[in-house]
Amino acid sequence: MTKDKEYKSALKVNKGIEQPPIVNPHLKKIIKKKTLTAEQYIEGILKGDMSTLSQAITLVESALPRHKEVAEKIIDGCLPHSGNSLRIGITGVPGVGKSTFIEAMGMEIINAGNKLAVLAIDPSSERTKGSILGDKTRMEELSTSKNAFIRPSPSAGSLGGVARKTRESIILCEAAGFNVIFIETVGVGQSETAVHSMVDFFLLLMLAGAGDELQGIKRGIMEMADAIAITKSDGNNVHKAGLARVQYQNALHLFPKQPSGWDPKVLTCSSVDKNGLPDIWNTIKDYKELTTENKYFTIRRADQSKYWMHETINERLKDMFFGNPDIAEKIKTYEKKVINNEISSFNAAHFLLDEYIKKH
Amino acid sequence: MTKDKEYKSALKVNKGIEQPPIVNPHLKKIIKKKTLTAEQYIEGILKGDMSTLSQAITLVESALPRHKEVAEKIIDGCLPHSGNSLRIGITGVPGVGKSTFIEAMGMEIINAGNKLAVLAIDPSSERTKGSILGDKTRMEELSTSKNAFIRPSPSAGSLGGVARKTRESIILCEAAGFNVIFIETVGVGQSETAVHSMVDFFLLLMLAGAGDELQGIKRGIMEMADAIAITKSDGNNVHKAGLARVQYQNALHLFPKQPSGWDPKVLTCSSVDKNGLPDIWNTIKDYKELTTENKYFTIRRADQSKYWMHETINERLKDMFFGNPDIAEKIKTYEKKVINNEISSFNAAHFLLDEYIKKH
Repeated sequence: MTKDKEYKSALKVNKGIEQPPIVNPHLKKIIKKKTLTAEQYIEGILKGDMSTLSQAITLVESALPRHKEVAEKIIDGCLPHSGNSLRIGITGVPGVGKSTFIEAMGMEIINAGNKLAVLAIDPSSERTKGSILGDKTRMEELSTSKNAFIRPSPSAGSLGGVARKTRESIILCEAAGFNVIFIETVGVGQSETAVHSMVDFFLLLMLAGAGDELQGIKRGIMEMADAIAITKSDGNNVHKAGLARVQYQNALHLFPKQPSGWDPKVLTCSSVDKNGLPDIWNTIKDYKELTTENKYFTIRRADQSKYWMHETINERLKDMFFGNPDIAEKIKTYEKKVINNEISSFNAAHFLLDEYIKKH
Repeated sequence: MTKDKEYKSALKVNKGIEQPPIVNPHLKKIIKKKTLTAEQYIEGILKGDMSTLSQAITLVESALPRHKEVAEKIIDGCLPHSGNSLRIGITGVPGVGKSTFIEAMGMEIINAGNKLAVLAIDPSSERTKGSILGDKTRMEELSTSKNAFIRPSPSAGSLGGVARKTRESIILCEAAGFNVIFIETVGVGQSETAVHSMVDFFLLLMLAGAGDELQGIKRGIMEMADAIAITKSDGNNVHKAGLARVQYQNALHLFPKQPSGWDPKVLTCSSVDKNGLPDIWNTIKDYKELTTENKYFTIRRADQSKYWMHETINERLKDMFFGNPDIAEKIKTYEKKVINNEISSFNAAHFLLDEYIKKH
């Protein structure tokens, strides 16, 4: 299979059809090729070889036990070389122009002398009908730059699984020398909280005057944003975009201060005529400067690492409990009783816990 | 001990000193008195007897096993008679005038023919130096009304413990005929998410022009609010309050719609000259009407019941894990390794989980 056909079929598979790892074309390529050792992968990654990086990420995404073994060694080997990047989460509803923004913003950042990796979080449990995240066909210039690396979302089904793999991919990209990392997500599901917990800076893209109901952003996301960029500020839309900017800036000003000490900014931009993009990049760099000075940057990364350790533990404990066959058949019954006021939430919980502990 | 002295010493104990249930003066009273049976408690509560209600809530708050047994029976007996109330969460930073607001708003509601219970969530883990929640000495008129019942926060230490006891107290108050329930909290800690998960309507009190940094509200709370009331809108402050109202109303308008379909309102009020209080009560009633019509009211209560069942299970699973002595001594070590990039968050989690499963 040619490289082109392979990517096209990868994209087709990503279009909402359940993608078991075994038919992931990237995976087929690995199995066919002579498998490298973990050390060889690590060596290639540290040299910045994108092909090796790509294969290594495929191993990380794989569910096959023998791949997981190698992947773990690769991650361990890359960990000491990770951390040296700015991790930027980018979200917005379908239609806001995310792909064109990432293309334009990405080229801006690369032309300033950086190496950019673009990852995505789009769990199949939340698959939207909108643009495919990490769609290279819409990021032509960026996808052919030797200083850019673009990867579609892993399709692991559960958000927890996808979040893990994305975080591990970040480690590999950083070890490969990418010093700016975009993590793209859709804005209408649960992914945003996960993304917010793995990035340094959270950028929200919005449209001007689309009407509140059309924005469709999930509640709570606006308060997470370190900056809001009003897109499509060109042609006839410039005035509207400017108005929206003032409105959102006033609104954000009324909100409690961020723990970072940073005042969220609202900016306008156009991916078409490139207006506003340098300002956005400068804003992000200002944020990095402020939070490095007041130590918040490092504290937040430490908190995030601890958070993912605890989150992984909690998810597994819940899986063990709710996956227990005795419990699984009783949950719905107890939920019904609780809703009908036949038993209190707490008594229901304790009956189930006692069952579980007895059999454990 | 006279009733007065008893309440005053209860308040003194609540002023931040760890309050083991054994010295809770309410509890002493119970132990001294001839203990009633569960059936007798239930009977008294259903008749609306406030003294019986108060003693029953004390049993609910108690950690003594024999009290827990009786408490469980009382709750089970009251459950079928619960649910018939409007549960309203009230929060705001110290200094916003919460007690005076509750007193004035409470009398407004009682004079309209309702029976009001005022509960509080203020876990000792978050004890603030501000006003004591549920402080009857600041709610003189309300605390002497035969249609009002005021109760300070249980001091159970953990937020989970306090949340449970408050939810159980709600059940008892509703069975006793109280059809409006206020649940008061402080606004700067974790309690708000818990309160939001046990009320129908969330009211946020704010000051006008106090300066953003003085507001001290925790992030995310503004987006939870179904209404914001700008307090102290009297005398020279009327104009400022009016301006703040417009600013906040504009800001809220930019935010995504609430799942309830309700547009959050911003109002002004004065607990001194009583302006604005009827409007707030009407707003709450409008909310009740809208969400009853679109079924959101019932759906939300069902979700909350299920939430507390799951939350209780998750907390217990975590306690079992993190309370395990082998795990407890290793957690800090693994957290350090994770922060220093010596091991990934996920590998750390899995090492700990494997340890736990082996010994389980």
